[in-house]
Amino acid sequence: MALAEFDLIHRFFTQKPLKNSVNQLGIGDDCALMEIPEGYQLAITTDTMVEDVHFFKGADPYYLGNKLLAVNLSDLASMGAKPVAVTLALTLAKVDEQWLAEFSKGFLSLAQKYQLDLIGGDTTRGALTLTVQALGLVPKNLAMKRSAAKVGDLIYVTGTIGDAGLGLKIKQGYQSENPELPLKQFNQPLPRIAEGLAIRNIANACIDISDGVAADLEHILEKSNVGASIDYAKLPLSVEVKNYIETTGDWQLPLVAGDDYQLCFTISPENAQHLSIKCQQIGIIEAKKNLRIQYKGEIILLDNYGYQHFS
Amino acid sequence: MALAEFDLIHRFFTQKPLKNSVNQLGIGDDCALMEIPEGYQLAITTDTMVEDVHFFKGADPYYLGNKLLAVNLSDLASMGAKPVAVTLALTLAKVDEQWLAEFSKGFLSLAQKYQLDLIGGDTTRGALTLTVQALGLVPKNLAMKRSAAKVGDLIYVTGTIGDAGLGLKIKQGYQSENPELPLKQFNQPLPRIAEGLAIRNIANACIDISDGVAADLEHILEKSNVGASIDYAKLPLSVEVKNYIETTGDWQLPLVAGDDYQLCFTISPENAQHLSIKCQQIGIIEAKKNLRIQYKGEIILLDNYGYQHFS
Repeated sequence: MALAEFDLIHRFFTQKPLKNSVNQLGIGDDCALMEIPEGYQLAITTDTMVEDVHFFKGADPYYLGNKLLAVNLSDLASMGAKPVAVTLALTLAKVDEQWLAEFSKGFLSLAQKYQLDLIGGDTTRGALTLTVQALGLVPKNLAMKRSAAKVGDLIYVTGTIGDAGLGLKIKQGYQSENPELPLKQFNQPLPRIAEGLAIRNIANACIDISDGVAADLEHILEKSNVGASIDYAKLPLSVEVKNYIETTGDWQLPLVAGDDYQLCFTISPENAQHLSIKCQQIGIIEAKKNLRIQYKGEIILLDNYGYQHFS
Repeated sequence: MALAEFDLIHRFFTQKPLKNSVNQLGIGDDCALMEIPEGYQLAITTDTMVEDVHFFKGADPYYLGNKLLAVNLSDLASMGAKPVAVTLALTLAKVDEQWLAEFSKGFLSLAQKYQLDLIGGDTTRGALTLTVQALGLVPKNLAMKRSAAKVGDLIYVTGTIGDAGLGLKIKQGYQSENPELPLKQFNQPLPRIAEGLAIRNIANACIDISDGVAADLEHILEKSNVGASIDYAKLPLSVEVKNYIETTGDWQLPLVAGDDYQLCFTISPENAQHLSIKCQQIGIIEAKKNLRIQYKGEIILLDNYGYQHFS
């Protein structure tokens, strides 16, 4: 790109001064510099979103900027890490001022909410491809790993699930009486940062629900070398999702729909008594491998490919 | 992408166990985890390479993987940071086993050379777009910033410059008697990690030469609020570049050609006596703004847009 274009882009993303004291040097040098306080580990995650793959061509740029960051922060939340910094690699087909203004507003508004700094990035020309790397802090030995589930742990999810999936169906034409909540959940998912911080002292394994609770829970089971049973009747569903299931018969939606970015975690029964966040127990970790779902008196088995068994 | 494709890709990039003790958890969870030793800062940089923009369609995938990592490590080198970890966001139009095998070999061979771990990443489908984030360690207060040049500092470069630029010209059809060195410099630039570590105690400002020594030095001048004079006759040139200039008359090549990834740094005359690396003084930092180039008795001025003045 020409220098003038770069200047334009930098203008939209300028965030000064640095908000978070761990960040010692931001955009404008060969590297950013960060200082990690003693007793903490750095958590690092990266996610890419590609036009026509992860979002529709012509998607609202404000929501896109917001969601791109939210998806990455959600990975930090699931480890119990507090976000502190982010880098953005922006590949753009063209420099569209209006688009950039909205995209950066959506991105930076979420960054502002969590007081995190945009410390670096790269801007290149090409097919619209957005890569974020998010950096967070977690006290040593408190990070919630996928491999930490133990037999007897209770399985919980935060919030309600299936709403973002219903939002997608509404965008694709499904008529809902109350589309606002599902659409908001689809367009502007909130990373469960506060929840991750609240449970990291007492929970064992944790994952964020990006691919559907069934598939994501399977990742925990695989890494922890355990199995699980979940009770469909216990899944926390919004009124809208309940109505959708009643209308369409598509009861699998809350199990297989992704993009909710709620947390799914496992915790010992003793520690579960100390839970202070809004969450719902949906099952239990068992020694017997695989994921079993109790649904209307039947037990449904999922194979290694998660929800593919359903379709 | 389908799960089987992801498995394939992961197979090529598996690096086990973690080599560097600061990396506590690598690929396979929501985040990687890293522990920064006391007294150190973390240096973070990210660069994207796009097909048809940063490399030719059909470029050799081994060299591509190698260069993608080298370009990022070069940014760490210019801060005086020691690389410890890297993440890779890979957007691929299709899953081509042969291509992936070569690309990953080129990438991992350089990672292996510096004992750094691939701790995370994302794989998506789309136009070929490659983003790396590299993480390094530098003792507190030793990072060489662009803003640290002082009036009276001597300006040095490592190695020779213009070779990668000549390599590009050879790829584009220029006939050279000895094309090996320029082509190697273009295809497989080596990040100047050892040089960065060797000078961080004594140098002030430093930058890696990615856009040509004139344009890159200008970044130092701008951030440090100073000017500089360089003496063209002192530029360290290889025999091949000298022959090229003699043959073509294109004397500007070593000033404006990028991709060399040598370091350009400033250092006080006292400290310069302690330099232990192979490097060449090319000029001096002055209070008078802008970059002046002495060439055959004339003084050539560069404006803020660096080499654009030349063309």
